[in-house]
Amino acid sequence: MSMTALRRLEALPRAESLRLLSSVSLGRLVFTHLALPAIRPVNHAVAGEQVIIRTYLGTAISAAVGDRSGTVVAYEADLIDPDTHLGWSVIIVGRASRLTDRAEVARYRDLLRPWVMDGVDDIIAIQADMVDGFRLIETPA
Amino acid sequence: MSMTALRRLEALPRAESLRLLSSVSLGRLVFTHLALPAIRPVNHAVAGEQVIIRTYLGTAISAAVGDRSGTVVAYEADLIDPDTHLGWSVIIVGRASRLTDRAEVARYRDLLRPWVMDGVDDIIAIQADMVDGFRLIETPA
Repeated sequence: MSMTALRRLEALPRAESLRLLSSVSLGRLVFTHLALPAIRPVNHAVAGEQVIIRTYLGTAISAAVGDRSGTVVAYEADLIDPDTHLGWSVIIVGRASRLTDRAEVARYRDLLRPWVMDGVDDIIAIQADMVDGFRLIETPA
Repeated sequence: MSMTALRRLEALPRAESLRLLSSVSLGRLVFTHLALPAIRPVNHAVAGEQVIIRTYLGTAISAAVGDRSGTVVAYEADLIDPDTHLGWSVIIVGRASRLTDRAEVARYRDLLRPWVMDGVDDIIAIQADMVDGFRLIETPA
């Protein structure tokens, strides 16, 4: 990296942001737990305008989402070089809901390997109501 | 990775968690912005029981922290293999405050390269009130 290079954040279009999100399998769910900000690494799949994650009944995540849809959560994934810090980050904000359709749940159980296998798990869909993607790029000064 | 291996989460002691956090320079700040969960990649340093980040006046982050201390935020860093998903994650929850001591601010400006250089920036200290570290490990079945 040149010390004279200029770094700037480039906003990414929605479709490109969702494509980048689907190019990785791991991200971080952001939610409120006991009135405190909480974050957990989980793995995901992108299905159209939804981010689908697989997580566990009884965890803070499932408790936050609850039995009904409507809880607003954020989801972030990034690919940032640890040395140069160049890369991208995509942030989704939207309503989370637990999927209940048996066929749909079975399909995502096949698709998503949970981060930890530790009992009965939920499939949670997050609506991509807001999509905020950006890329840090470097240009010669 | 063997398909018959067992994966489990191992909780990490506080000191080990802070050591892992200080071994990487990039993480994610989690806060509340306009009553919605928000997350931004930033870079950090660990100083004793505090996580120090460098960010910008006027951004959602600085607005959330405000001029006084007390806002509770979360901070997460991880090192997780994108293929095997083995690795660790450390989550800090605590009060964030903007540093105002000129010598201290100057010292951290030298130490922390901001993720994006884009104007006047703040140095924010997050108290490690709660430290939650875990490692995903695999053992033969």
